Amino acid sequence: MTTYRDAGVDIAAADAFLERVGADIRSTHTDAVLPGPGAYAGLFKLPNSGQVLAAACDGVGTKLLLARDLGLYEGLGQDLVAMNVNDLLPVGARPLLFLDYIATGKLDPEPLAAVVRGMVRACHLTGCVLLGGETAEMPGAYRPGEFDLAGFTVGLVEHKLHGDMTPGDVVLGLPSTGFHSNGYSLVRKVIADSGLALTSALEGGETLGEALLRPTALYVTDALTLMRALPVKACAHVTGGGLLGRAEKLVGKSARVVLHTNSWRLPLVMQAVRQAGRLDPAAMARTFNLGLGFLAVLAPDVADEALRRFGDRWAQVGNVVAGAGGAELNGDFATA
Amino acid sequence: MTTYRDAGVDIAAADAFLERVGADIRSTHTDAVLPGPGAYAGLFKLPNSGQVLAAACDGVGTKLLLARDLGLYEGLGQDLVAMNVNDLLPVGARPLLFLDYIATGKLDPEPLAAVVRGMVRACHLTGCVLLGGETAEMPGAYRPGEFDLAGFTVGLVEHKLHGDMTPGDVVLGLPSTGFHSNGYSLVRKVIADSGLALTSALEGGETLGEALLRPTALYVTDALTLMRALPVKACAHVTGGGLLGRAEKLVGKSARVVLHTNSWRLPLVMQAVRQAGRLDPAAMARTFNLGLGFLAVLAPDVADEALRRFGDRWAQVGNVVAGAGGAELNGDFATA
Repeated sequence: MTTYRDAGVDIAAADAFLERVGADIRSTHTDAVLPGPGAYAGLFKLPNSGQVLAAACDGVGTKLLLARDLGLYEGLGQDLVAMNVNDLLPVGARPLLFLDYIATGKLDPEPLAAVVRGMVRACHLTGCVLLGGETAEMPGAYRPGEFDLAGFTVGLVEHKLHGDMTPGDVVLGLPSTGFHSNGYSLVRKVIADSGLALTSALEGGETLGEALLRPTALYVTDALTLMRALPVKACAHVTGGGLLGRAEKLVGKSARVVLHTNSWRLPLVMQAVRQAGRLDPAAMARTFNLGLGFLAVLAPDVADEALRRFGDRWAQVGNVVAGAGGAELNGDFATA
Repeated sequence: MTTYRDAGVDIAAADAFLERVGADIRSTHTDAVLPGPGAYAGLFKLPNSGQVLAAACDGVGTKLLLARDLGLYEGLGQDLVAMNVNDLLPVGARPLLFLDYIATGKLDPEPLAAVVRGMVRACHLTGCVLLGGETAEMPGAYRPGEFDLAGFTVGLVEHKLHGDMTPGDVVLGLPSTGFHSNGYSLVRKVIADSGLALTSALEGGETLGEALLRPTALYVTDALTLMRALPVKACAHVTGGGLLGRAEKLVGKSARVVLHTNSWRLPLVMQAVRQAGRLDPAAMARTFNLGLGFLAVLAPDVADEALRRFGDRWAQVGNVVAGAGGAELNGDFATA
């Protein structure tokens, strides 16, 4: 059984680091910094207009090593935009602009132009402008062929998410396209240890490699359409911490989330990795999105209305129940 | 004679890449994207309020390899903030917020906490909040001990720089603290090839290594104080392209800049690197800041007033003369 820590990613160490530097960072905060649901985007109230900006920063993690192994780069551009703009949605913000940082040892135009094409396409799909960025050639810091990507986005808060979750509330979900851009250090370790071939076919004619590189879904249109139409209590973009980690942060300590596994499908690519790595289901649920990339909590009557109007996109995947925090999966998985 | 290209940094290749992807990137632009002096920060006009945001993104380049060699990390935090917030000044923007991306192979808390301390200090010094960021542990993408840093800042445009340069205008400058965060691939190659010891003493008791790691100057207070007090025509943050590259972009094709080398000093650390690498002075002027990290162009009477009021900080370093573009150095260097 392979764990995320075996794969070299120590979430506890990262949390300890953020704890250590947190007070220092907060010492820079003024009254312009507004409290938010945390973890997704920072909130900043502009002088004079009082408009509230949301800003987020993220990369694509070690998915880029897999893209390099397969020579398929364009999807990384969408991954980078998606990981950032999706993080604006839980604070009710519409993405306005995006900037990218590309660092490499020696500038190889083909793969990096493919990355930019993917970013441009994702910006068009989300109504976000690609306002600028930095392309840095750093010999000695990256070996030839190596690169890293970081993205930054700024949005304008247009929707207030009320946050007063109560038992009986409904959790709606949007499907993921696969692993998105999280958990790839574990995925790569499973593939290396098990000898699973990236060229092996999954059902549906896609290879494992192709399925692993599917770009992260862009949730901007679906989430903003829902927020414009109906009052949403809270949202989660399912990234680090996995489906259960993100679901339990939705409700804090005053309630509990139950997700019904028969209401969505585990992507085939996750089933393949689960089997090859004999992964612990409980650990998977705190590392991967398990097929749900975005969650929204609504009052029951509002959820009914949402499903009537947007049921082609959203599905009911769970409920808020009485409890003192936490999230759980109810049932076993069907696979896509 | 060592050149920047020998050191593995190919500016022409970077320009060709940006040319190639430029049309794609501009296809995402809407009317909200405003034209600006380019190169420094993108401008975005907010809906409703019409307030104009400026956004910039930058890293610290291969200076971080030198910091790692010497085990001195705190300065990199200021470098990262400075490279970004200084880039907001040429568009007349006041920095509001900063986000950081830290990527590493295995999270080593000591050096990275030092980097964050440096960022926090620089944010305090510039009135900017450290709103968030991403710390990514990416085994396989970075070797143990390796890391990279990217920064991102958003400011609010508060000053209009008029831009109508005419012969007779005066160029004021602010001193740099050394190489800042540009040209380190060349600096490192000179040191490696010449065997110059990082422990060797410069005049003044500082070692070469310490002088090379002096943090990038923060120009926010000096530049905004000047812009609040007096009409400024244009500013340059002297980074990639060096002093002449940045000076000639100030005036476009309608005039010419002459900088009088007897009006400021070449930092000792640059003299040491120049001698060790037998560097071509003309190439140096298009790679390094040569001791001037920030320039401002003012009408002659305004410049007189600026020097009366802020002459403890700013010095007259050049003039705008008739011509069809370009910049030149007049005279040889005194060294600091």
